[in-house]
Amino acid sequence: MNKETLIQVHERIQPYIHRTPVLTSELIDDICGTKVFFKCENFQKMGAFKMRGAANAILSLTQEQRNRGVVTHSSGNFAQALSLAAKKIGVKAFIVMPENAPQVKKNAVKTYDGEIIECDSNPIAREEMAEKVRIETGATFIHPSNDDNVIYGQGTAAIELLEDYPQLDYIFTPVGGGGLIAGTILAAKFFSEKCKVIGGEPKNVDDAYRSLQSGKIEFNESTNTIADGLRTFLGDRNFPIIKEGVEKIIRVEEEEIINAMKLIWERMKIIIEPSSAVAFAALLKDKEDYKNKNVGIIISGGNVDVTNLPF
Amino acid sequence: MNKETLIQVHERIQPYIHRTPVLTSELIDDICGTKVFFKCENFQKMGAFKMRGAANAILSLTQEQRNRGVVTHSSGNFAQALSLAAKKIGVKAFIVMPENAPQVKKNAVKTYDGEIIECDSNPIAREEMAEKVRIETGATFIHPSNDDNVIYGQGTAAIELLEDYPQLDYIFTPVGGGGLIAGTILAAKFFSEKCKVIGGEPKNVDDAYRSLQSGKIEFNESTNTIADGLRTFLGDRNFPIIKEGVEKIIRVEEEEIINAMKLIWERMKIIIEPSSAVAFAALLKDKEDYKNKNVGIIISGGNVDVTNLPF
Repeated sequence: MNKETLIQVHERIQPYIHRTPVLTSELIDDICGTKVFFKCENFQKMGAFKMRGAANAILSLTQEQRNRGVVTHSSGNFAQALSLAAKKIGVKAFIVMPENAPQVKKNAVKTYDGEIIECDSNPIAREEMAEKVRIETGATFIHPSNDDNVIYGQGTAAIELLEDYPQLDYIFTPVGGGGLIAGTILAAKFFSEKCKVIGGEPKNVDDAYRSLQSGKIEFNESTNTIADGLRTFLGDRNFPIIKEGVEKIIRVEEEEIINAMKLIWERMKIIIEPSSAVAFAALLKDKEDYKNKNVGIIISGGNVDVTNLPF
Repeated sequence: MNKETLIQVHERIQPYIHRTPVLTSELIDDICGTKVFFKCENFQKMGAFKMRGAANAILSLTQEQRNRGVVTHSSGNFAQALSLAAKKIGVKAFIVMPENAPQVKKNAVKTYDGEIIECDSNPIAREEMAEKVRIETGATFIHPSNDDNVIYGQGTAAIELLEDYPQLDYIFTPVGGGGLIAGTILAAKFFSEKCKVIGGEPKNVDDAYRSLQSGKIEFNESTNTIADGLRTFLGDRNFPIIKEGVEKIIRVEEEEIINAMKLIWERMKIIIEPSSAVAFAALLKDKEDYKNKNVGIIISGGNVDVTNLPF
């Protein structure tokens, strides 16, 4: 892994992604006591940064592999991302989803021509079903976050942010499966002399925080957080990167997530999902530690049911 | 009035406004069958285009006039805009508001150091109170929409849009008091060879539509629309400009406004107020007439109570 690889990844996925805007707000800066730069991946295709990693993973396949398609298990943004990236690249996508997944999420995948295969609603069932599909169809399995090419793809958001604002002292990202923060750590390492990466994580699913303490991958007892994109856990590909490169992980309460989300909606006039608010909530919580700095925040996505809000 | 005046206006207000971004969406383009360019004045300072006109009106005053302050009557975005522009320029702002205006709107004005003077909740009472304040304080009265300098200021959003996308065939704006559409008509006249301006208006408050038909300023019997920024009527400064220059006004139902607003929230991931959705609703309604064109839409503002949505 080196800088040149990341540059190639970024070039390769260009036709399939937006270069998303970076927004700022004097009022948010005043509240935080620091300069904040929001990288708006909620404006990314299909509404989340996951499009970057999905596109890169498919583009990394040989033509023969592409002919047999790709398979993943996800009921969230990666399901949509892999479906859309596959559609644009001309590849078949099989998406393993729990049978009780919300219909709106199933519909989103269908919009992008992903083929849904239902399974029981537990981690073992979905992994078994994905393996079954892989064997039967010959499709290549692509993990939503624990895959080198996915990690490199997710890192391209931070590359763009650092190209636009090389003066950044910190980049905050939410931590769920670990793909975004691992990619961001690689980008900061190769595209900045000084930029450190900080993770925001809901206290109720603080597996990454605990994994850093224990030195091995920990799991969550509960998935009780509004930040539904962050209920997953780390893997053997991204954990070593995170362990080596992350500055720290800040844990936030559910109420802090909701307040941060509402503040962004009201003041920035952009729609972000609860998982995205976690990184900003982390900055708000420890803002005294980041006075008069330049802080980038990756707004990871904007896919939220606007008819069912937490405020 | 000429192009040079508008250029000077634009230069003059630069330090007090954002050059707002223009967003696009393939999905919206597919739905409309045309290329749509959203000029995001919801990202403007204080959350609406009104900042432009307010800043220009104050900057047009002599130093002696500035020393005595400004006064307006508004319970909406212009109240906030005049307060903030006055604060930034170092001028006192008196804001006449109905005593029953929502506390959240009063608070917003106070945030920007505007001094609120309450009055009874009817058009005559607010005009009388504004006149009383004007006489007692010597402050200059600035009308929210029927004022040449306000109109010129509002036109600068379209100037920026046409600078970024000179190929535009049409610009759609909502029609309320008439300041935005009049300014946009002037901008299109001087900054484009071909761009026509179209207004969107709620059918329930279609005074501008009827004024164009009758040739004189008409009023609304009711103010029963969710588009609370568009309940006002035209004036003798902006109506002649609109009458001469507007291509047409398209009227939309309340349900169409809400559906257009929800579509923008869900697909563009930006927060727009109902009044902003009216212009897009007008395009959606008559989209067959605008196939394969380049259409600009001025998203007028994003000040909405996110805890009380119509969907």
